[in-house]
Amino acid sequence: MSNQATTLDHKLALSLLESFNAQGALMAWNARLTSMTPGACEISLPMAQNVCQQHGYFHGGVIGTIADAAGGYAANTLLIPVSECLSAEYKINFVAPAIGDTLIARGKVLKAGKTLVVASAEVFVVHQGKEKLCAIMQQTLFVIPKESPKVDAG
Amino acid sequence: MSNQATTLDHKLALSLLESFNAQGALMAWNARLTSMTPGACEISLPMAQNVCQQHGYFHGGVIGTIADAAGGYAANTLLIPVSECLSAEYKINFVAPAIGDTLIARGKVLKAGKTLVVASAEVFVVHQGKEKLCAIMQQTLFVIPKESPKVDAG
Amino acid sequence: MSNQATTLDHKLALSLLESFNAQGALMAWNARLTSMTPGACEISLPMAQNVCQQHGYFHGGVIGTIADAAGGYAANTLLIPVSECLSAEYKINFVAPAIGDTLIARGKVLKAGKTLVVASAEVFVVHQGKEKLCAIMQQTLFVIPKESPKVDAG
Amino acid sequence: MSNQATTLDHKLALSLLESFNAQGALMAWNARLTSMTPGACEISLPMAQNVCQQHGYFHGGVIGTIADAAGGYAANTLLIPVSECLSAEYKINFVAPAIGDTLIARGKVLKAGKTLVVASAEVFVVHQGKEKLCAIMQQTLFVIPKESPKVDAG
Repeated sequence: MSNQATTLDHKLALSLLESFNAQGALMAWNARLTSMTPGACEISLPMAQNVCQQHGYFHGGVIGTIADAAGGYAANTLLIPVSECLSAEYKINFVAPAIGDTLIARGKVLKAGKTLVVASAEVFVVHQGKEKLCAIMQQTLFVIPKESPKVDAG
Repeated sequence: MSNQATTLDHKLALSLLESFNAQGALMAWNARLTSMTPGACEISLPMAQNVCQQHGYFHGGVIGTIADAAGGYAANTLLIPVSECLSAEYKINFVAPAIGDTLIARGKVLKAGKTLVVASAEVFVVHQGKEKLCAIMQQTLFVIPKESPKVDAG
Repeated sequence: MSNQATTLDHKLALSLLESFNAQGALMAWNARLTSMTPGACEISLPMAQNVCQQHGYFHGGVIGTIADAAGGYAANTLLIPVSECLSAEYKINFVAPAIGDTLIARGKVLKAGKTLVVASAEVFVVHQGKEKLCAIMQQTLFVIPKESPKVDAG
Repeated sequence: MSNQATTLDHKLALSLLESFNAQGALMAWNARLTSMTPGACEISLPMAQNVCQQHGYFHGGVIGTIADAAGGYAANTLLIPVSECLSAEYKINFVAPAIGDTLIARGKVLKAGKTLVVASAEVFVVHQGKEKLCAIMQQTLFVIPKESPKVDAG
């Protein structure tokens, strides 16, 4: 994916933020869209009681969620305002326990087709100021017109 | 997977519940372990602001999380108290928008090896009293001794 | 997926066979379409030098190939002659070494959408007359009009 | 994965080649190990009748096979001669039709754990001298002692 533009149109960025901020699940976790460039996106999340698993680490489901969201918003930077995308599927590998105070997911578009977009994300946990890779995701997104939120994933 | 026993030892069930209830992320969503038999598990979750995406449906990340948990606890029914499992990876397909008031994930073990367990889960959304399939997951779990919570996923 | 019809239209079956027999890779392995019903498909394959890995078992790539093909032809039973499908992606777990003289993949459609079809397959190896599960696959197929073989997967 | 060494020990390279050349399925396709460095591997394959699908492109199963092999041998460069690996599972996205005369898979290790290795591969098709990305794979490998070829994948 060669993305020649390195900054995102301001109006487009606001539209993506508005969509992100309307996601109750992400807001309940204080997730933030910390960076967006064409074809890429970064999301971060602070440690809290409601993102833990039983040993006090970040929960795998939380890691999967922000990886999925990071890939999805990376795709949306190339689609909005004409169209947007839904996750058709994703696959995630957990490679280290997510012990730390912040979780960061970095998504990028690998291939942007007309109907399907393939994206990936890496998730890092920040512990004592150092980033450590904790998960790797690969994902297929389905492009839909911006106006039809109720369309079926298939 | 032929599981001849159809009920779970009471002490084992309590141990699994204790582990489940210690997961802050699942508790924040009011997720419940609604059924456990050897090699199988059901988890359900009510609709609320903190499990929504931007259109008011259940969030894909929430769906992924309870699918992953349902597969993991299905495996744990065969492992606890000697050992337990961590998700090494999972893959989930979203097949319909999750519009409804309750989400139900049903996980089952497909193959229980000594080191790796393969499980699957189907996720249903209940709308006006009817269940509809909304996601399908396939997962690899890594078996670890019960005493060592900090072991690396690899 | 409820498939009320249990047999396939004869002309449709011939059209699927013709497509299958045009696949050089499958023909080189003497793969056969051994059963087709609406939404389901079975493919089998005999052991030979050109389907082995280094220990003399069926090669994982061969197992992945016929799992993918079994899911794809299961989908095609519902699509042909109006449209057909391409694999957008698949995920496969290997659960036992494939030691035996015949490999059998059984694919079925889990969800048939207008643009995407989700299918699964189980692969069995036959050894001394007994079937053993050796792999499990989950797959996303992309529906295209029958006339346009060159369309991009996305 | 930081791999400081950039060349592979000669004896190790020969051992990997020997293993590769013992794979009947890969040999039948004239697949070649074209590059190996610690944690990375490249495999290539010429177009032929026995690697085609019905439209004359490289078969998706062939693409999946060499992607899986490229990730596996990338892992083996870090494991051999003490141990080796088996594919526990892989997931592959097809992103463009594989039209061309040569297929090249480049695998690399993303995380090397004691029991599990996570690897990825990109597959390119060469058409009129130009490489085009046609598939992306993510994979989990299971580490086994070098002496025990019959161990179960789990």
